[in-house]
Formats: sequence, C-alpha cells, structure tokens
Amino acid sequence: MAKKMWGGRFSKKMKKEVLSFTSSIDVDKELAIYDCLGSMAHAKMLGKTKIIKPEEARTIAKGLNSILRSVKKGTFRIDKDFEDIHSNIQFALEKKVGRVANKLHAARSRNDQVVNDTRMYCKDKIDMLFKSAALLQKSILGAAKRYFGFIIPGYTHLEHAQPILFSHILLAYIEMLERDKARLCDTKKRTDLLVSGSGALSGTTLPIDRVYLKKLLGFKAISKNSIDAVSDRDFIVEFLSVLSIMSMHLSRISEDLILYGTKEFGFVEIDERYCTGSSLMPQKKNPDVLELIRGRASQIYSNLVSVAGMLKGLPLSYNRDMQLDKEPLFNSVEIVNEELKLLGGIFKSVKISENKVASVFKDESIFATDIAEYLVKKGISFRKAHDITGRLIKHSEKNKKSISQLSLKELKKFSKSFEKNIFAILNPTSSVKFKKSIGSTNPLFVKKEIKKWNKILRG
Amino acid sequence: MAKKMWGGRFSKKMKKEVLSFTSSIDVDKELAIYDCLGSMAHAKMLGKTKIIKPEEARTIAKGLNSILRSVKKGTFRIDKDFEDIHSNIQFALEKKVGRVANKLHAARSRNDQVVNDTRMYCKDKIDMLFKSAALLQKSILGAAKRYFGFIIPGYTHLEHAQPILFSHILLAYIEMLERDKARLCDTKKRTDLLVSGSGALSGTTLPIDRVYLKKLLGFKAISKNSIDAVSDRDFIVEFLSVLSIMSMHLSRISEDLILYGTKEFGFVEIDERYCTGSSLMPQKKNPDVLELIRGRASQIYSNLVSVAGMLKGLPLSYNRDMQLDKEPLFNSVEIVNEELKLLGGIFKSVKISENKVASVFKDESIFATDIAEYLVKKGISFRKAHDITGRLIKHSEKNKKSISQLSLKELKKFSKSFEKNIFAILNPTSSVKFKKSIGSTNPLFVKKEIKKWNKILRG
Amino acid sequence: MAKKMWGGRFSKKMKKEVLSFTSSIDVDKELAIYDCLGSMAHAKMLGKTKIIKPEEARTIAKGLNSILRSVKKGTFRIDKDFEDIHSNIQFALEKKVGRVANKLHAARSRNDQVVNDTRMYCKDKIDMLFKSAALLQKSILGAAKRYFGFIIPGYTHLEHAQPILFSHILLAYIEMLERDKARLCDTKKRTDLLVSGSGALSGTTLPIDRVYLKKLLGFKAISKNSIDAVSDRDFIVEFLSVLSIMSMHLSRISEDLILYGTKEFGFVEIDERYCTGSSLMPQKKNPDVLELIRGRASQIYSNLVSVAGMLKGLPLSYNRDMQLDKEPLFNSVEIVNEELKLLGGIFKSVKISENKVASVFKDESIFATDIAEYLVKKGISFRKAHDITGRLIKHSEKNKKSISQLSLKELKKFSKSFEKNIFAILNPTSSVKFKKSIGSTNPLFVKKEIKKWNKILRG
Amino acid sequence: MAKKMWGGRFSKKMKKEVLSFTSSIDVDKELAIYDCLGSMAHAKMLGKTKIIKPEEARTIAKGLNSILRSVKKGTFRIDKDFEDIHSNIQFALEKKVGRVANKLHAARSRNDQVVNDTRMYCKDKIDMLFKSAALLQKSILGAAKRYFGFIIPGYTHLEHAQPILFSHILLAYIEMLERDKARLCDTKKRTDLLVSGSGALSGTTLPIDRVYLKKLLGFKAISKNSIDAVSDRDFIVEFLSVLSIMSMHLSRISEDLILYGTKEFGFVEIDERYCTGSSLMPQKKNPDVLELIRGRASQIYSNLVSVAGMLKGLPLSYNRDMQLDKEPLFNSVEIVNEELKLLGGIFKSVKISENKVASVFKDESIFATDIAEYLVKKGISFRKAHDITGRLIKHSEKNKKSISQLSLKELKKFSKSFEKNIFAILNPTSSVKFKKSIGSTNPLFVKKEIKKWNKILRG
Repeated sequence: MAKKMWGGRFSKKMKKEVLSFTSSIDVDKELAIYDCLGSMAHAKMLGKTKIIKPEEARTIAKGLNSILRSVKKGTFRIDKDFEDIHSNIQFALEKKVGRVANKLHAARSRNDQVVNDTRMYCKDKIDMLFKSAALLQKSILGAAKRYFGFIIPGYTHLEHAQPILFSHILLAYIEMLERDKARLCDTKKRTDLLVSGSGALSGTTLPIDRVYLKKLLGFKAISKNSIDAVSDRDFIVEFLSVLSIMSMHLSRISEDLILYGTKEFGFVEIDERYCTGSSLMPQKKNPDVLELIRGRASQIYSNLVSVAGMLKGLPLSYNRDMQLDKEPLFNSVEIVNEELKLLGGIFKSVKISENKVASVFKDESIFATDIAEYLVKKGISFRKAHDITGRLIKHSEKNKKSISQLSLKELKKFSKSFEKNIFAILNPTSSVKFKKSIGSTNPLFVKKEIKKWNKILRG
Repeated sequence: MAKKMWGGRFSKKMKKEVLSFTSSIDVDKELAIYDCLGSMAHAKMLGKTKIIKPEEARTIAKGLNSILRSVKKGTFRIDKDFEDIHSNIQFALEKKVGRVANKLHAARSRNDQVVNDTRMYCKDKIDMLFKSAALLQKSILGAAKRYFGFIIPGYTHLEHAQPILFSHILLAYIEMLERDKARLCDTKKRTDLLVSGSGALSGTTLPIDRVYLKKLLGFKAISKNSIDAVSDRDFIVEFLSVLSIMSMHLSRISEDLILYGTKEFGFVEIDERYCTGSSLMPQKKNPDVLELIRGRASQIYSNLVSVAGMLKGLPLSYNRDMQLDKEPLFNSVEIVNEELKLLGGIFKSVKISENKVASVFKDESIFATDIAEYLVKKGISFRKAHDITGRLIKHSEKNKKSISQLSLKELKKFSKSFEKNIFAILNPTSSVKFKKSIGSTNPLFVKKEIKKWNKILRG
Repeated sequence: MAKKMWGGRFSKKMKKEVLSFTSSIDVDKELAIYDCLGSMAHAKMLGKTKIIKPEEARTIAKGLNSILRSVKKGTFRIDKDFEDIHSNIQFALEKKVGRVANKLHAARSRNDQVVNDTRMYCKDKIDMLFKSAALLQKSILGAAKRYFGFIIPGYTHLEHAQPILFSHILLAYIEMLERDKARLCDTKKRTDLLVSGSGALSGTTLPIDRVYLKKLLGFKAISKNSIDAVSDRDFIVEFLSVLSIMSMHLSRISEDLILYGTKEFGFVEIDERYCTGSSLMPQKKNPDVLELIRGRASQIYSNLVSVAGMLKGLPLSYNRDMQLDKEPLFNSVEIVNEELKLLGGIFKSVKISENKVASVFKDESIFATDIAEYLVKKGISFRKAHDITGRLIKHSEKNKKSISQLSLKELKKFSKSFEKNIFAILNPTSSVKFKKSIGSTNPLFVKKEIKKWNKILRG
Repeated sequence: MAKKMWGGRFSKKMKKEVLSFTSSIDVDKELAIYDCLGSMAHAKMLGKTKIIKPEEARTIAKGLNSILRSVKKGTFRIDKDFEDIHSNIQFALEKKVGRVANKLHAARSRNDQVVNDTRMYCKDKIDMLFKSAALLQKSILGAAKRYFGFIIPGYTHLEHAQPILFSHILLAYIEMLERDKARLCDTKKRTDLLVSGSGALSGTTLPIDRVYLKKLLGFKAISKNSIDAVSDRDFIVEFLSVLSIMSMHLSRISEDLILYGTKEFGFVEIDERYCTGSSLMPQKKNPDVLELIRGRASQIYSNLVSVAGMLKGLPLSYNRDMQLDKEPLFNSVEIVNEELKLLGGIFKSVKISENKVASVFKDESIFATDIAEYLVKKGISFRKAHDITGRLIKHSEKNKKSISQLSLKELKKFSKSFEKNIFAILNPTSSVKFKKSIGSTNPLFVKKEIKKWNKILRG
C-alpha cells in the first residue's frame, strides 16, 4: 500500500531515517479534530460546487465524521508510517469509504490545509487560556478578600520600600493577567481567518466556494492573498509572544511567593500539596511547583525564539522549515494552561503568617517617605525634606535608636517643622491609610478595586 | 555640588566605576523631550492642588519649557556626571530657576517618572512606525502597479511550484505589513496609560490630581494599581514582539529580493544606490542593504530576548535590572524604522528583467497542478489525477521532451481524458488566468486587490 | 504503597496535577542506564566502606544489574506514578531484592545523583557525536574526491565572486566539522568529573570513599566543592553551545545545497530518497531534509536559550528549576546526531551537474580580480588596478560585450599594461590554477588538503 | 575625493541613508589598533615578496606606525564619511604617505582583513578577561579567608537545607570562575589563527608569504581553506558562549548577595559605595550594581542569540549580515570585564553580620540529615532513617518544641537507636565538623581548599 499522498514522479523509496526525520505525526496528531472538521467542510463545499458529486461529498463527510468520533473517544489509531496527521486521516478515510476518498484532496494542498487546522486549534486554545486566566484571577481575588487588611513591607530592589496591603500586591497580579487576556483577544482577531482554498500558493482552477467554507467553519474573515495565506505564521509567533509575557508574569508571581514563603521572609505558607520533599533531607518542604513555573518561563521564551528564528530570512512562500512551528506552539499552550491552573490552586490554599511582619515594622526606616511627605506638607521642598529624612535615618541607625525613641527635641534638630503628631504616622496602618492617590495602597481604594474586580470576574 | 537626587543617608561617595556601570544617561537621553513634558505637567498639577504654590509651579514650568526648547534644538548639554536624563534635567532646572526646582520632585519617584516618560516615547514611536510601514506599503503597491502582468515562477521549498503574478507576491508583502500596523495599534492601547502619580510603589500621601495629569499629558487611561504601575514592562516587551515580527517580515522580503536579484534567478535588479562594491573584486555590486536587513532581524529578536529574559523571575515591584529595558527598545525602534524607509526606496527603484523568465517557463513541469486539475474537471479523482501527472512528468524528464512536445496519443497513454485543449494550458498566462479562487493569482483578482489597497493606503 | 522517596514530614497527599507538572519521568528515562551503573557503583562503595554490609551491597548490585539488563533490552517497565527515573529504579529494586534496597540511598541525594547520571550520559553522547561528525566528514571527503576538478562560481553576498573548485568548498565544510569535534573534546574535559558523594549540597557525615567511586565509574577527576557540584550546569550549557554551533554549520551547508540544487543554480542534484513530494503539485521534488536541518538550527539554539535563561539569577545551590535542563539537552543531542547521519547520506548520493556551470562562466566579470592582480604584477598599484578593472567591467556590461570580445586595442584604452596574454586568464581553469596562496583554491593545494584529510579521517 | 575603496563599476552615488545604515565605523573603530598592526605586517610581507618594492613597503609601514601611535594616544580622527575603520585608516595613510598607499591593498580583501583584525582583538580580550577573572577569584578568596568559620544555612530550593561554611560557598564561586578561565583558554586555541591572505574567498594569484605573515603577527597557526577562513565566525560565537556562561555565574553570585543582603536574610552587608539611593524614599540603600549584573546576564545572552541567529542558514562564503557580529562581541567583552572588576570590589568590601544567623539555627530542622545519618550509623537503612526523622520533625513542628527540647525518652519513641549523644550534633558547628566526604563543608577540607587556591592564584 502506498503510504504517501504523492509519489508518481518518484522512482526510489524514501529512506526510513528520512521518514523518521521529516515525519511530524508525533506532534501534529494534536490537530486531528481540526483536520476532520476542516476536511468535512471541504467535502461539503466540493459537493455544493459540483467539483465532486453531492453523494460522494456526503459519503466522505460521513466517513470523516466517524473518524472524528473515534478521535474524540481516543480510539483513533495513529499509524507512524504515515508522515503526518493529514495522511493518517486520509488513509483512514480511504479504508472506511473506499476510493471515493481520493476525491477529497481536490482544490487543496497540505500547505493551506495545515495552516487552516492550526488556526482552528489556536482559536480554541486562546479561548481556553482566556478562561484559565480568568479563573486564576478569581482565585487571587479570593485571597485578596480573605486577607484584606494584612500589611506587609512593599519592596523595591528587594529592599524595604513602604508598607503595602498584601491585597494590593495581589491586585497587581490581577492587573497583569487582565492585560494577558486583552492580548489573547487581540491576537485572536488575526487568527480568525479562513486560509483554506489558497492551494499550494496560487489558488486553484477549480470553482471552489470559499465564502461557504468560511461559514461552515465559523471563521470571521477570508484570506485575500494565496501566497501570504500559506507563508504567514504571524499568528503563531504572536500567540507565542503573548504566552511568553504571560509566563513572565507567572514567573514573577512565583518568585514573590517563593520569597514570601522562605523562613526568612515568612509572610505566607504554600500548601504542602504543592510542595515536594527531599530524598536526603527529611525536613524539606520545597516549593517545587513555583520553582518550575519560574524556570519554565525560559522554556516558553525559547519556544518563541525557536519559531521566530526559524522564520527569519525564509523566502516566500512555504518552506519545510515551517513544519517546526507546531511543537513549540503546542508545548507552550499546554504548559501555560497547566501553570494557570496550578497557581489557582496555590492561591486558593495559601495561608498568611503575621508573626514576621510585626517585627519587621519595628524598623521604622520604612516610613521615611511618609516622614518626608509630612515635611512637604509643612511647606518644605521635597528634595530638602528628602535630605532631612535621610540624615535622620542615618542618625537613627548609627545610634541604634528607632525614630519613635527619639524625643521631639532631638527631631527638631533635623527640622523645626517636626511636631508631636509625627509619631502618629510611624506605623504601617497609618502609612497605608494616609495615602491619597488613585491606585495607591490606601485600604479604601483597594477595597473599591476589589469590588470592581468582583464584578468584572463574575461575568 | 551634589550630583545625585539622593544621598542624605549615605556616608561614602559612590565609586567612579560604579557611576559608569549604573549610569543610563547614554541611553535615556532619548527620553529628554518626554521628561520635560512630563515634568511640566507634574509642576502644573502640583500648583493646581496647592502642594506647591501656583507661582512656584509657573516658575518651574517656564524653566522646563526653556529646557525643552534647547533639547529640541539639540543644544541641551548632557552632563555625564549625572546618572540619568532625569537628574540632568532636574539640575539644569535648578540652575535656571534656583531652589524652587527642589519642589518639583514632590509626590513622585523616578520609578513612576521613567515609566511615564517611556510610555510617552512609545506612543510617539508607534505612530512613527505606523506611518513608515504605510509608506513602504505604498512603494510596494507602486511596484505592483508598475509591473502588473509580469509572471514569475512561484516557489515552495525554493523549487518551482506554480506561475504567479509578480504583483501577487508584492501584495503578499503589503498584507504582512498591514498585520504589523494592526499589531502596532493594539499594543498602543495598552501603552496609552498614565502611571505618573504611583510614587515609588504605593502611591503618595500628598493630595495629587491624577485625572488632571492624564488630561494634561493626553493619556487615554489612568493606572489603577501603583505596584503594577511601576513593575509593569509589558508594553515594552509587547512592542518589541511587534517589532520582531516586523523585522522577520522585512528579512523575508529581503531574502526574496536577494534571491531574485542573483545572476541565477535574475528576475529583478536592485538599484545600485542600495548596493556596495568590494575592495578586492572590481566587478562586485552587492545587495548589502538587503543583507543587513536580513541579518538585523536577529538583532531585533535579541533585543526582545534581552528584555524578556531580564524580567523573568523578577520579584515585584521595581528592581534596578529594569533599567536595561530601554537600550534594546530604542535600538529596535530606530533600526526597524530605518529599514522600512530603505526598503521603500528599494521598491521605488527596483527594476524587473524579463529575460530569465522566458527560459524558465520552457520547463513545463511547473504546470503540473494545472494538468492535474484539468483531469479533475474531467471527473477523475484528484489523487488519481495527481498520480497520472506525476508519471507524465517523470516520463517527460526521462525522455527529455517537454509535455507540449508529446503527441496527444502519447498523452492518452497516461489518461484517456486528455484532449487537444490540454496544450492550451501549458503556458504561464493561461495558468494564472484560469485560477478561480478568491485570493488567487488570477490577474482579475490581483487587479481588484491593487485597487482596494490603493484606496486604503491613500487615506 | 508509598511512591515517593520522601514524605515522613508531610501530612497531605500531593495533588495529581502537581505530580504530572513536577514529574520528569517522560524525559529522564533516557538516564536509566546511567542511573543503574551509578547506583551499582554506589552500592559497591557503601559495602567497601562498611556503611552497609558487604553482602547487602552485593545483593543490591545484583538487583541493579538485572534491572540494567532489562533497561538495555527495552523491557524495563516505567511506572508514571513515580516522579522520576531514580524513583522508578529504586522501587523496582525494592521489588526485586526487598527491604535491603532501602539501604542504597545512604550518603547521597538526588541532587548529586542526577548530575552524576547526566555527566555519564554527556560523556557517552559526546563520543557518539564525535564519531558521527567524523563519518560525515568522510562522506564529504568522498564527494570532494569524486568531483575533484569541478569548478563552480564562488559566492560572496550570493553574488558571483571568483571561480572555485567545488571540492574546495567541500573542504571548508570539513574544516567546520573539525572545529566542532575539537569543541566536543574540550567540553568533555569539564564533563568528566565525579560529583557523586556531594550529598544534597554539603557532603555527608558517612565515611564514603569517593576515590573508589571515581575509579569504578571511570571518571577522570573528583569535584572538590559539594555546593558547586550540585549547582553547576556549565557542562550542559557548554555542550548545548557546541551543538548550537554545530547545527549552525549544518544549516549553512544545507542552505548551500538547497541553493545549488535549485533549477536556477543547478550545480547539484539531491538524491530523491532525501526529498519529498507535494500532495497538490505532482511535479515536486523538494529538499525537505535539508530544509528541516536548516530550520532545526533554530530549535537547537532555543534549547540553549532555554537552559541558559533558566539558570540566570538562580541562587545557589540546587533549585527545582534546574530539572528543566534535561529535555533541551536530550533533544539537541538526538537531533544533531540524526542530522549528521542524514547529511552523510546526502553527500554520498549527491550528483553534480555541469550544464549550468558552462553558461555561467560566459559572464567574465567573475575574473575581475584576476585581471586586477594581472595589472598589479605589471607594477600598477592595487587600488588603481581595481579602478581600471571596475571601469572595464562597466564598459563591457554597457556594451553587452564580454571582455574576451574586446580587442587588445580596446583594452589598452583602460590600461597600457594589458598584453595579449590577458585573454588566457579569462576562464575558470586558469583562474583557479594561477592561485598562489596557501589555503587557496589552486587544485594542487586542494589535492594536498584532500590527502591530508584522507589520512586524518582514516584514523 | 572618493571616499570608498571600490566604485569603478558604479555610476550612481550611494544614498546618504544607505551609508548610514551600512556603515560600521561607530562599532569597528574598536579594531583600529589591530588594523594598523595587521596592515603593517601585510606591507612588510608585500615588500619581502617583491609584490611591492621594499622601499614602498617601508614607507607604508612607517605611515601606519604613526597612525597606530595616534590611535593609541586617542588623537586619531575618525571620519564618518568612510564606511569602516579599514577605509578610515587607508585614507589616513594616503594623506600621510601619498599614492603609494594604494599599493597596500594588493592580495587582500576586507573579507580576510576584518576577520584577521577581529581574531587579534579576541586574543587580547581573552587574556584580559582571564586576568580579570583571576583577580575576582583572589578577592573572593580573600573574603573566604577573612570570614573562615562563619556558618550560614545552606539553601536548596531557597529553603534551609544544611549548615555550611560561608567560605565553602565562596569557594564554589571560585570553582565556577576557574571553569570560565579554562573555557577562555580553549576558545583561544581556535581563535589564534592567521586568516589573512585568504583574499575574498579563493586566495590570490600574487606570490604572498603567509608563513612570514603568521610570524610577524604572532599567530599559532595558518588557516588552510580560504573559503572557510572568510566564512567562519565560530570563534566569535564560541567566545560569546563562554561570556554567556560567565555572566550566568556572575548573575547567580549577585542573586546570592542580594538575598544575603536583604533585611530578611541579613548575612552580609554590601558596601554603600556599591549601592545607590532613591529619589523618593530617603532610607534606601539599594544593591544596584548587583541587580544590574544580574539583569545584564540577559543582555550577554542576547548578544549570543543575535550572532548565532544571524549566521543560521547563511550560505558560504562572506555575506554582509556578518558585519553584525562585532557590536554584540564588543559589548559583551566590555560589560563582563566591568562586572568582574566591580564584583571584585564588592567582595573586598563586603561585611558579614552574625546576628541573624544565631536565631536561624534555633530551628533545628536544618540538622535533619545529620540525624538521619546518625541513625544510619546505628545500622538503620537510610530510607527508614529518613522516614523516622521526617516524622520527628513533623512532631516537633506540631508541638512547637525544638528537638533539643524533647527528652531522650520522647526521641526513643521514634527510634530506639537514639542515644544521649544525639543532642551533641544539633548545632551548626558539629554539623559541619562531622562531615567526612571530600569536597564537603568540613572546615578541615575547606581550609585545605583555601590553601590550594592560594597557591594557584598566587601564580
């Protein structure tokens, strides 16, 4: 039995190692569903346009539908002697409906077929990831509500900067994911395009009906240039870029949680179902899931690098190199989706621990900005206020005395503008409460934001 | 003179080599205009909200405006002893208006200031690149009109596939650039956001008015989370992704032109103003500009890799690593813009050469798909038609006879369905003319597309 | 049954999706052989040092040996409930030899165990790749001998530069591979290091004998710092760098062959067993293997990017992110090795075609450098000679006359130094023959090089 | 004045923007010294071989020598109208010595000239980096000696693993740098190759003496294939790989120091001369230098990505894309060298702080492995000992009692093998002291290693 969809002009048989090197079946089997759906629509269209007989079209579509069912059930048998999923389905169809199957391939090439399948795949997965991201946002929002009021040091340069609400940083994560969702929607617009009917690169002399195809497959638009249709992989690179930014976000969130969960920071406790132990050290409870999410950002990036690098300087139109677009794509989609789900579970089960925090705020240098702004309100220029406070901190460190331990008299040596009420601001609760700006960590603002997200994410 | 915007708490002086390593002035001077504009708005807002006196605000704004003018004229003197453009402008202001300058820095941090500046920069450059891309599209469209009717072999796998209109491949380039423009617009939506007023990470206790700031600076929206505002570099990574895809397009177009311009292909001639010679080989006229555009795609990619890699696993909020976002950004913007312009010039001056093409089409195997589809129209299944044609090609190659040189009788040995009219399709003009599908290389479709783009790009 | 090598301190069960996300068994099963060998040596050492009883050591070693045999035969059953290959083997051992298996894990951690296994893997694969590269060199050398004397245009900027022997460019490929082999040897030096016995990161209180271990496992040296031993992945990044350069070479060689094999260049014919056809276009014979080798360079690069990016900024010592080092490593090793073999087959079967070449050399501008150097020998400065020849070429192009078609009188208008013998150099045979420099394309030099390589590669 | 080294065959003038896009002078001015040296040797060789007159050679060499001096003094004026450093020097020479300068370019092309220069540059910079790395090792060794005896928690997964000597982790850094130095040496072997005399790609018909050239320029070997000589950029990619691994090391060291320097870990204090403050927050002392070193690893990686990506799929021999190899190379060399020096300063001035450490070791779970190994010595299998200890830790955590606070009777409930001496091992000093294995954190071993490095680095 001939196992290829070409071969008339060939005299010699392909070498086994060549088949193995060029075969994509291990990867593109992921496209089986979309290939069946695409081919069913193609068959119907061939029937409608009389390129094949309507009854032939029906027979083919019926055969494909039965294959589709077996794919969905997981009973479709992949034969690795066929180089890709398209050949696998084609020959399965032949087995099922006989010679009429040979009529299916009129007016199309694998060049347009595979891109069409991949676009259908991407549309589905974009929707899936959108939902997973929204679910993660909900889990984070849950934690933000649960732990509202918990104040931790905010960090810049991993050094204490200013007190923040723990919920405020959680809302920052929700913002990040919201942008990811927006990017998914944007890339979907450019993915939602019927390219089937473009032939190998120049169209076809057969009287096909692409508008009908578009309708059958639920695409929003039709490609207008057959060369571009088979050469374009932008939608994949763009999707991989979106996933890269997403995985960057997840890696940053993970790093925060890893740090907050260390003995040294001690602000949160990761549920042990998301940790693993050590084969040597019996005490260990390691945040492996978070570490792997952090590490895998590099893998997702490299998938983008792989596809972009492959396309660089490639002449139009189709080149076989382009087959290498799918493995990185499928890999990134699967991993990022898993990560979104796992982080959801982690945020649902994360616990906070208030012990460390109390001692941390004993170091009052974290209120320095509040002090400087206190002076600004007294009419001192900010840069002078900054300098005064800086010297005050240095003095306090040198003398191993906290600012509250200094007398007002001592404070007045730094600035006459200090009044008794200065001591009232030297605590985390005041620090966050006195913030005035939109978007700040003021509990009133944060509460309002929680409400807003509650509404958005309920939908 | 103190040359830093901090230092009260420090006892020792920064080392010279530390200043040189941490300084960003060589790079961020590019932001000078946006920093002046941002600070002018900030001053006005501080005046309006009475954080500083209205007359102080006016003095500061006036001083900044005069600095802005010198920046635009190119007369603003950068002092490398200051670590960044913000300090440079701050101290220039101090020189100009005296101590009141010290009041400007109230209620803001360089953390929010630099992101705000960069967002303003990006908005401008996105618009610039959009225009440059549109201009390149126009140049390409010009060539598509000028050389309408010129038929070349279409390639897949760099092997002859089917005849195509040269204008058809040019329109493919226009499609590619159109997607680039759409991506620029999408990323602009997420860039157009006021982050100023977020402070170092938690907001400010001073009664600032961010809505007023937004209005003054012409932003569409206000950031809602101060931590996210100073931590987020998505808009840069996203912009770099868009530029990477763009540079990938330009590299593919360049590769096409390099190949088409070789002695061997010989379809086009690149104007010698876009070529250079050799110091050794006197005959040389090399397509250097195209080669560099091809090569530079890798540089643009690497700029994306650099920023994405830098952000991976970085804890919130601001870390100094993030200063490294600007060099790759500015470099990519500048190079891609230059490339768009240069390619515009190349397409305006490119000449076609019809000599080679005539001989190329003597090899009739390029019409194989047309022959197979001819048989399909006679009711033969496509896969059978494919096989018949394949064997016919093999026969023709083996006997060193073109298909037209075979008699109808000989052809009938391969399939009874061959009729005399088969010979009429064995030429490039018929091949393109007989295409039926939307988006195909049929001259009628291509002409319609040219008209459409003419309208779109006129606007 | 407990399926983990840790767990005493845990109360809750790991979630199924956490196991699936953190499990490495799909990847690290590749290490099975090395894990058995490593554990056998470890058991023997534990016995020798009396940490366990000698007879226990023998029982364990015997059990492991039987597992090793089943791994080699391919009958070892992987149980995906175990998170990695080490647990799989550990529990298989337990099944085979009972409780005594529990004594094996004394004085080691998976942290040192996995690195030790991976180093053994790398050593083997470096040797394998070295051999494959040498075999490819031999195939190329075969072609260089077979087609000695065949002259083609040498290209710079893909434009005609100077005539070269086809064998000369083939020898360039051999040089490239020779450097790859040297790099493999260099990286092996740093790979050949026993790290077992480093414990989790700090060593062990048990009296192990690392010198004996080293001897048993055939390592050249012993790691001297236990923290470094479990943190270091240099040998992987370095190996991936070497493979990246190798794949870059293979991509350049492939691009040359793709170009030379086009209808337009037409210098070589790739055997059809290394080509595939098209499902739509019956005439197609595409160089798919070469295209995939070209494209896969990007995949190999991205594997390097993935591991290097993962390691960036990772605190010492072991972090779970580091588990992600193996998939990119194994993938790169396998692909590059396949590519070396496939290219070997391609070079063995490649055919040259002299038709095109004859016509190509009718364009005599390719001899321009020879002409300029002719003038230099007459005492003219090179830059003047270059200018004269440049103008001569321009004249010849403008008048559509080749240089041989010009009379000596006409030539003398460009330079008095032209003599009759100038016409004798205007052909490819003279051009290569008159080269004088070591390393040049002069057939005598090239022949000598072929002999040299013949000797080197025989060994 | 003609400003190019070619042009005879050109009719039109190069466009200004083309010059600006193709010019490399801003980058390759770095090569000025090597270009002078290379050209001086070339001139001498041309004289020796009588290709030009000996007195001409002397005049040229003298002129070049005077240019070299001005380059070294920094007074050589770059004219940006010339496209590269080679043209700049060529025309400066012409100005100095007149027309005879035109004789210099015989028997060479910029293709071989620029690679030769770059190889000379790389050799120098490899030596420089080797020295800088050795100096950093010395600074680290200094700290290892200074703080010998200071015990901190060793981390895996950023969780407490086992106590280690601070000096032990410092020695790990020295090991990492030692491998970097070895890689520098290895890559130098492949860099130290004379390629000059290869012409544009095929050699020259002039009777040059490459052996003499090699001797003059101090190269170890001569390239044997002219095509490979001008096409090969392995030595750059390899150097960039070495620098990437190096920068990865520096980023990991920096991350360790950043973490150890946080308020939360508090083991070390970075000297404030290597820190900067905040324009808003007066209390801040941020480890900016370390953050930038961490972040810049991504920049160094991206330089490697840039060059490797540029070379992928490039046909032999020279293409203009290859000009883009230099900016990433020079940038990486400069940055990594600065980083080595800065880290040297940081290690020289770093202070340790013992406060935190005392409290950290109150949590005795860090001795779990020591406990398990204690049990192994009593004859219990390791996996059982691991389990016992795990349950003991869980018990201790649940009851908020440290292990020392448990009675022997309580301990015996977990294992009968516990004896009174178990309490003696529950402190960091015992933990490190009882380590037995080569390479472990045992102070005796660490001291021996310090001595070894002392000897090695003195040399």
